[in-house]
Amino acid sequence: MKVAIINVGNELLDGSTINTNDHYLSSRLTVIGCHVKDIRVVGDNSLSIASAIKDLINNVDVIITTGGLGPTADDITKESIAKALGLKLIYNHKIESDLELFFKSRNLQMTSNNKRQAYCIEGSEILKNNCGTAPGSKLIYESTAIYILPGPPKELAMMYEELVENELINLVNDKKFAMKFKCIGIGESSLETLIYDIITECKLSYRICANNGLVDVDIGSYDEISFRESCEKITEILDDYCYSNSKSIQEVVADKLESKNWTIGFAESCTAGMCSSMFADISGVSSVYKGSVVSYSNEIKINNLNVAKHTIEKYGAVSRECAIEMVNGVVNSLDVDVAVSITGIAGPTGGSKIKPVGLVYIATNVKGMVEVKEYNISGDRETVRRRACNFAFNQLNKNI
Amino acid sequence: MKVAIINVGNELLDGSTINTNDHYLSSRLTVIGCHVKDIRVVGDNSLSIASAIKDLINNVDVIITTGGLGPTADDITKESIAKALGLKLIYNHKIESDLELFFKSRNLQMTSNNKRQAYCIEGSEILKNNCGTAPGSKLIYESTAIYILPGPPKELAMMYEELVENELINLVNDKKFAMKFKCIGIGESSLETLIYDIITECKLSYRICANNGLVDVDIGSYDEISFRESCEKITEILDDYCYSNSKSIQEVVADKLESKNWTIGFAESCTAGMCSSMFADISGVSSVYKGSVVSYSNEIKINNLNVAKHTIEKYGAVSRECAIEMVNGVVNSLDVDVAVSITGIAGPTGGSKIKPVGLVYIATNVKGMVEVKEYNISGDRETVRRRACNFAFNQLNKNI
Repeated sequence: MKVAIINVGNELLDGSTINTNDHYLSSRLTVIGCHVKDIRVVGDNSLSIASAIKDLINNVDVIITTGGLGPTADDITKESIAKALGLKLIYNHKIESDLELFFKSRNLQMTSNNKRQAYCIEGSEILKNNCGTAPGSKLIYESTAIYILPGPPKELAMMYEELVENELINLVNDKKFAMKFKCIGIGESSLETLIYDIITECKLSYRICANNGLVDVDIGSYDEISFRESCEKITEILDDYCYSNSKSIQEVVADKLESKNWTIGFAESCTAGMCSSMFADISGVSSVYKGSVVSYSNEIKINNLNVAKHTIEKYGAVSRECAIEMVNGVVNSLDVDVAVSITGIAGPTGGSKIKPVGLVYIATNVKGMVEVKEYNISGDRETVRRRACNFAFNQLNKNI
Repeated sequence: MKVAIINVGNELLDGSTINTNDHYLSSRLTVIGCHVKDIRVVGDNSLSIASAIKDLINNVDVIITTGGLGPTADDITKESIAKALGLKLIYNHKIESDLELFFKSRNLQMTSNNKRQAYCIEGSEILKNNCGTAPGSKLIYESTAIYILPGPPKELAMMYEELVENELINLVNDKKFAMKFKCIGIGESSLETLIYDIITECKLSYRICANNGLVDVDIGSYDEISFRESCEKITEILDDYCYSNSKSIQEVVADKLESKNWTIGFAESCTAGMCSSMFADISGVSSVYKGSVVSYSNEIKINNLNVAKHTIEKYGAVSRECAIEMVNGVVNSLDVDVAVSITGIAGPTGGSKIKPVGLVYIATNVKGMVEVKEYNISGDRETVRRRACNFAFNQLNKNI
């Protein structure tokens, strides 16, 4: 099934916003067996949108547009598509009343430009937006399905995953079998080397995607038997690295804690709450998560985590010794069963020859059993901090 | 000057590689005053490449292609462009000898497929590749300049910056004036309503982009006088909402603290370290930021922030009273000049009729002056938490 993507938005052409919707859609579409033939980025310009639609409509089975559905006058995707196909825009009172409810529930005044969002193309089906005001829509024109989706990445993802993907899966004739291996502790190219023979031998489609120390491998095949066999082999090969086929590393940690009825706390220095915040991304995590101390200054390490002043003077705040005292301090201060501490140099300044930027110590305390590890992380400030958090969850996962 | 970008590569369509060349080029081109009209991503397919070229050649002044210049059989950008324009490929012996030198200097054997790279389109000028084997080229066809550049981002960047950008700067006639207004505390559509008359009257280009409670407005014009005048007017109109023309809201807060030599700490419940982590995104923030207490459980609120048990029992953990005790508690516990506390219901569960999901209390303590405010934030768990952090920084900014 041939698919084209049209991303609409001046902000994608003038470099002020990085287009992430193209990759989000193309990778998801590929995994379910669609063949993405063309991606276009056009401005909020009626002629450009119309010309892309006319150009693609006879060459693909599905067109997905993103963006240009907002309330302001520069949002003209629906109008432009309607014009291109010679269709009318119709005012939809159901959308208007949904919008009114949306604003009312938030105690906000609906401005008149919001009503622009209530227009939809004749014959189209409305796709409800569960995290924003702009509804999407679906239109069948001759034999091509056009999905008109919002531009904000989160709204797009929610609408695509809830309302579009399953429809497309049903339209794809050949069933594609797919499996994800979520890994940590190994690089992208080393991982590829490990599984490359199986991939080529079994003619699997695959994608390896690295992100701040996490490496996701997606495997796909139309042949069920060879797919099952290769999944088994890959599972065995990646045993040391694969933490889940679906869950995030922090969800895996939370599940383990939940099953043991243990609580957890964090002591963060360079990551400054990022690890705690990632953990609290999980809804309902309050059953195991009690709290954290962010000890960005030495004073807080000493006063609130009971790190000895002498330890910091002798070994420095970024040291094995300090990490250990931090983790033990947070166990006592928050009265938890399990804790992790992170102290390091996130950069870009603050590094030295002996302690370079990217040096991070992570200590875990699991019911009194303490482990401390040294990491040397490359990358900019944000990368060092994000990777440190992922490594902290990995160290917890191995030790719980 | 109108520019189109064509990114060539199957890997960009099947999601296996994230396209970064589009954003790299579009942002650099915009800065030098070019107008990027169209970005296309096509596969390593002769028909697709040719059709994009034919489609764009009469509509823009410059076309930049990336990718498809490698030695392997799937790299066919030059052939496809030549075919589309009815031009011949010519073998260039100078390129061949350069390639031989390249391989020799690295003690590598040149394989025969590398010689494919020595073909170039008749009439084109060769652009030397200083960090790879694939040379680029430049072709003037009728009145359009076509730059054919390599796909690997490092090679593209080096060639574009060394050999292309200056040529384009000399071709751009009009200088564009631009200004950003970074706002908070007002919705996208209300903001548009406020400035719409000036925008249309002065024929400004504009873009309004909302993100978790932050709203960025970009204004642009080629006419300096009307641009300066409208910027002045907009500055006045947005006075209550605009916190900066360039800096993030947390940077604005950090600058204020720095100038007063004050320190800050955070007490976070539902945001669970996100606010602290956002603040520590700023390199060098340790001069003002001491630390935080994440009090996800009531126990931590009581034991580590000195919130009265009675307060939680009577008013609940999500209440004005609790927020105030949290912020005062963290000022004492961390010994800071300024603090902010956040307590709320991030959802999706945990809400009630009286205290729905999205109810958040934020309290600031600035040198003893306490303010607490109630917010009702719509959206999913992550949105509620992100917005709460931005509102916390806004409240700090107003009170410091």
